[in-house]
Amino acid sequence: MRATVIRGTRDIRVEEVPDPVVREPGDAVVRTLLACVCGSDLWAYRGVAARQPGQRIGHEFLGVIEEVGPEVRAFKPGDLVVAPFVWSDGVCEFCREGLQTSCPHGGFWGTPGSDGGQGEAVRVPFADGTLVRLPKDAASDPRLLTALLALSDVMSTGHHAALAAGVRPGSTVAVVGDGAVGLCGVLAAQRLGAGRIIALGRHPDRTAVALTFGATDIVPARGEEAVAAVRELTAGVGAHAVLEAVGTEESMRTAISITRDGGAVGYVGVPHGGSAGVDVGQMFDRNVALRGGVARPAPTSRNCWRTCCRGRIDPSPVFDATVGLEQVPDGYRAMDERTALKVKIAF
Amino acid sequence: MRATVIRGTRDIRVEEVPDPVVREPGDAVVRTLLACVCGSDLWAYRGVAARQPGQRIGHEFLGVIEEVGPEVRAFKPGDLVVAPFVWSDGVCEFCREGLQTSCPHGGFWGTPGSDGGQGEAVRVPFADGTLVRLPKDAASDPRLLTALLALSDVMSTGHHAALAAGVRPGSTVAVVGDGAVGLCGVLAAQRLGAGRIIALGRHPDRTAVALTFGATDIVPARGEEAVAAVRELTAGVGAHAVLEAVGTEESMRTAISITRDGGAVGYVGVPHGGSAGVDVGQMFDRNVALRGGVARPAPTSRNCWRTCCRGRIDPSPVFDATVGLEQVPDGYRAMDERTALKVKIAF
Repeated sequence: MRATVIRGTRDIRVEEVPDPVVREPGDAVVRTLLACVCGSDLWAYRGVAARQPGQRIGHEFLGVIEEVGPEVRAFKPGDLVVAPFVWSDGVCEFCREGLQTSCPHGGFWGTPGSDGGQGEAVRVPFADGTLVRLPKDAASDPRLLTALLALSDVMSTGHHAALAAGVRPGSTVAVVGDGAVGLCGVLAAQRLGAGRIIALGRHPDRTAVALTFGATDIVPARGEEAVAAVRELTAGVGAHAVLEAVGTEESMRTAISITRDGGAVGYVGVPHGGSAGVDVGQMFDRNVALRGGVARPAPTSRNCWRTCCRGRIDPSPVFDATVGLEQVPDGYRAMDERTALKVKIAF
Repeated sequence: MRATVIRGTRDIRVEEVPDPVVREPGDAVVRTLLACVCGSDLWAYRGVAARQPGQRIGHEFLGVIEEVGPEVRAFKPGDLVVAPFVWSDGVCEFCREGLQTSCPHGGFWGTPGSDGGQGEAVRVPFADGTLVRLPKDAASDPRLLTALLALSDVMSTGHHAALAAGVRPGSTVAVVGDGAVGLCGVLAAQRLGAGRIIALGRHPDRTAVALTFGATDIVPARGEEAVAAVRELTAGVGAHAVLEAVGTEESMRTAISITRDGGAVGYVGVPHGGSAGVDVGQMFDRNVALRGGVARPAPTSRNCWRTCCRGRIDPSPVFDATVGLEQVPDGYRAMDERTALKVKIAF
């Protein structure tokens, strides 16, 4: 079959690879319908995150089950499923409490020896513990299918940030970052009943999406200027709940500084750089909490797919470009050059 | 009257100062019965925290109301009260939600222009918003009075750490630090129903108190060795809730490293040093939260004094030495040299 591999820095190729097969009794093979490129894939693309040449890439996909191993109980060929960005056994103490990313038998798509999400099909270990079933008729609704694809990562990650930041009905929320995760954070905060949502971002096409997702204010600034602007919008005190969706030291510093005393930063931006942005003295004096980390996509998907199907939330606008499998390298280039926000891959 | 002042590094004196008087209509004057020396006073004593020569010092005291201003409604002369380590107006949005340390009209005892807690009497601003009433008959029970003195800071701070770390019935808890706050953290965790309490500390006389407070295991190690020991005690996964009661980069690094995936560090050690101990990459991968900061002594006192009076908790063993007012400099020396854990001042 054809699948995306990374050969080196800014060297993404679509190559012929072995067809996936059921190798363990709990495996399933999923034929991909939709996949996408993640902002975190760009860290590998840019050479910041190390990869072995020839390693598969991509961790967001949705498709139809083609084959299952003899121990798979929950799925059968023909089922429509979305995959969270990790596989997990579904039975350990961490999986049972929804922290599949800490499963001792779990792993990330595209690690050596495993398939990536940006290929024609994927071998899924521990299918029962990993995959989330979707209603079969969603396959015939392209907009809905695109919305459900977002559950594989960005919508789940935005939702995780909103929960970690403690968004409640009526909360004043600020979202640092106008990438796909930040925008999904706006949508998640709106879904949780936030009273006011201040989106920090400098790209007018993206902040336009934030407004349709429920943002009430846009702050097109960074650093000290952004802190001053958010404080001015919040009677000087800051936001109860701040979603950090960038992962740099500067964005963390901004997020902590705009959090109201006693509030929390929900951080989901993969930390790049050290902890210098975590101003622990300021956090101490003002009782600002720092919660979050890698998202919990499986519980979110199980929680959110009905909400998507009912049209209550629609994250599909975060995808602003579509490529076919052979054009995936163009998709990476477009996201790297910021001419696309998030690229969908249609098979 | 006589009160303790700090003249410079390791230069604590008891001097004649003006008698406190009601200056504002919401003031009260409290005649001190008991006060104490805090581990955080030692930062000023050692010259690490800057103080103006002649500034008052001490922020933990308990006494009897001597005089009240015309706007004081909740107290009258003769009432027995404990003071949290800050004063606060009691009516702002932060006070109403229990975050008195963020009150815009609040302040810390001993800041220039205010009285410190280690003196014969104290002018208390915003008495209604600041003081916590105690049952009058506690004054005749020296052990109980000593236990209630701990509510002014160390017991409240230990309780804050336990709440911030998310201690629940059955939790596995670890406490980093065997000072008075760490020991009170053990007691708070036990009160909240922790199933297991691992106390990290290297002073046998202190860990002996930890055991009487409910610790089930003692780890007399630091750094990597402590991390390995806690992981061995917890089937490799760490503790759900970790109380950090030291405030150094090393103690923070240890606390994060021994927290179970998905758990939280409740930190109350005043941060000294930078944020290098906050390993945000590890926190991200394992969904470890960092919560806490300066404690909420007023709500804790209101919540805990009955528990003390009923004998359900007794933090009084954290005081292992008593001095009179004129011997306060000896008390500082004893704590600085670690020959005393926490020094009580009896008036």
